[in-house]
Amino acid sequence: MSDEMNTKRRRVEVCYTPGQFELYKGDFDICVVIDVLRATSAICTGLAAGVKSIVPVETVEEARSLMSQGLVGAAERNGEIVEGFPMGNSPRAYWNPELVGKSVVLSTTNGTRAIALASKSSQVVIGSLNNLDALCEWLSNQPGHVLLLASGWKDKFNLEDTICAGAIAEYLIDKQQFYCDEDATIAAKFLYRSARENIFSFLKASSHRRRLRKLNLNEDIKYCLTPNTVESVPVLQNGALVDVMKTAEKKMDV
Amino acid sequence: MSDEMNTKRRRVEVCYTPGQFELYKGDFDICVVIDVLRATSAICTGLAAGVKSIVPVETVEEARSLMSQGLVGAAERNGEIVEGFPMGNSPRAYWNPELVGKSVVLSTTNGTRAIALASKSSQVVIGSLNNLDALCEWLSNQPGHVLLLASGWKDKFNLEDTICAGAIAEYLIDKQQFYCDEDATIAAKFLYRSARENIFSFLKASSHRRRLRKLNLNEDIKYCLTPNTVESVPVLQNGALVDVMKTAEKKMDV
Repeated sequence: MSDEMNTKRRRVEVCYTPGQFELYKGDFDICVVIDVLRATSAICTGLAAGVKSIVPVETVEEARSLMSQGLVGAAERNGEIVEGFPMGNSPRAYWNPELVGKSVVLSTTNGTRAIALASKSSQVVIGSLNNLDALCEWLSNQPGHVLLLASGWKDKFNLEDTICAGAIAEYLIDKQQFYCDEDATIAAKFLYRSARENIFSFLKASSHRRRLRKLNLNEDIKYCLTPNTVESVPVLQNGALVDVMKTAEKKMDV
Repeated sequence: MSDEMNTKRRRVEVCYTPGQFELYKGDFDICVVIDVLRATSAICTGLAAGVKSIVPVETVEEARSLMSQGLVGAAERNGEIVEGFPMGNSPRAYWNPELVGKSVVLSTTNGTRAIALASKSSQVVIGSLNNLDALCEWLSNQPGHVLLLASGWKDKFNLEDTICAGAIAEYLIDKQQFYCDEDATIAAKFLYRSARENIFSFLKASSHRRRLRKLNLNEDIKYCLTPNTVESVPVLQNGALVDVMKTAEKKMDV
């Protein structure tokens, strides 16, 4: 592709870990934060299920403080619900009629840290396999360059976030509105193409999946690895994640 | 695999970039530094071709200083030979009868920086596709855990180093003396298996390869992507890389 063509298209790249974000951040307008197992899957599911907003915070202390101010508290560390909180980051817990219209405060091991990092330099959108098509459609209608930021596991590469990022990159590049220029993005697309027929089977070899299996989370994992269960597009606005698809619906009602 | 079995085997993992080395370094006895295009390919080729030793240094200034003390100078930045040096990091330049028995000082954009980093906490060995089988055979006969450190490109992931690391990991794990526990290693093995029939074709999509093509390095790239052209195993000893296979031969002669 010529440089001239590149300047007319938008760029999409994959960053494998929050620790590498520094190398990318200045060049992108939108940052899609991905933590498939399980923070961003839970966020997409929760907003689709009727949660009004989700406030992502880095520390358990911040979560506790906002919980004391009336928000529903959700906190996870190392795959388990933090003591004193009614919820962690299991997407299934967010399909709960009692949460409809409520605001939730959420702190997780990797995902909310990545959100905090990304929010300093670009618009933050939440990605997962669960909201794949809705997100890609929305991204293709926004102006600007897109960085897909995998949350990883304690700053190391993980397969599920990379495959999800590869799926988004593939969609955007296939639509010919986007190009990529980095090997990390090429490898993510390749891993996605190899995995897409059965992402769950492909991840059998994943260390992260093995780790979570110990915690009896197989049902959660199957759900998180299922594309297009919801149509939400969570965007960070004034510190809270809201579903811009619902905002758009409301505007159309008026 | 049970934890008990793991403790009897040795661990091998892939670190994609020098920037992530900090997350791995304490756990490994041997660090294989990989910079396929082109520093480590040049080192393996040079020692196989009769160069006595190669002193890797981080800065061009250090290289200049050692050159003034009588070493043959080699320095590369951004794919080109640094002004004032007779050589850069093209492996073909190292097949030179005039270099037999000589010592070379080498500084490159990514590779020699990775060597300096790795040498602080473990034994450093040099890996490339060119010395793949000799290296793997040697590693399988050493005690200790092995980290495969890709040099990347300016701290970002690159495909050729990852594929080379995946090839080494595959060999060691197939021999059932080693296990891996990280998604990065699983993905590297997967990328290698996908690429191995024709690594050159697989890398057609690589940004790094595109960048080097501009510098008319196609012949170099083809050479660097060819497995098993040499049988050297360069190990860092007292600040200089020497071929331990030749040392072993000499010992046997005595």
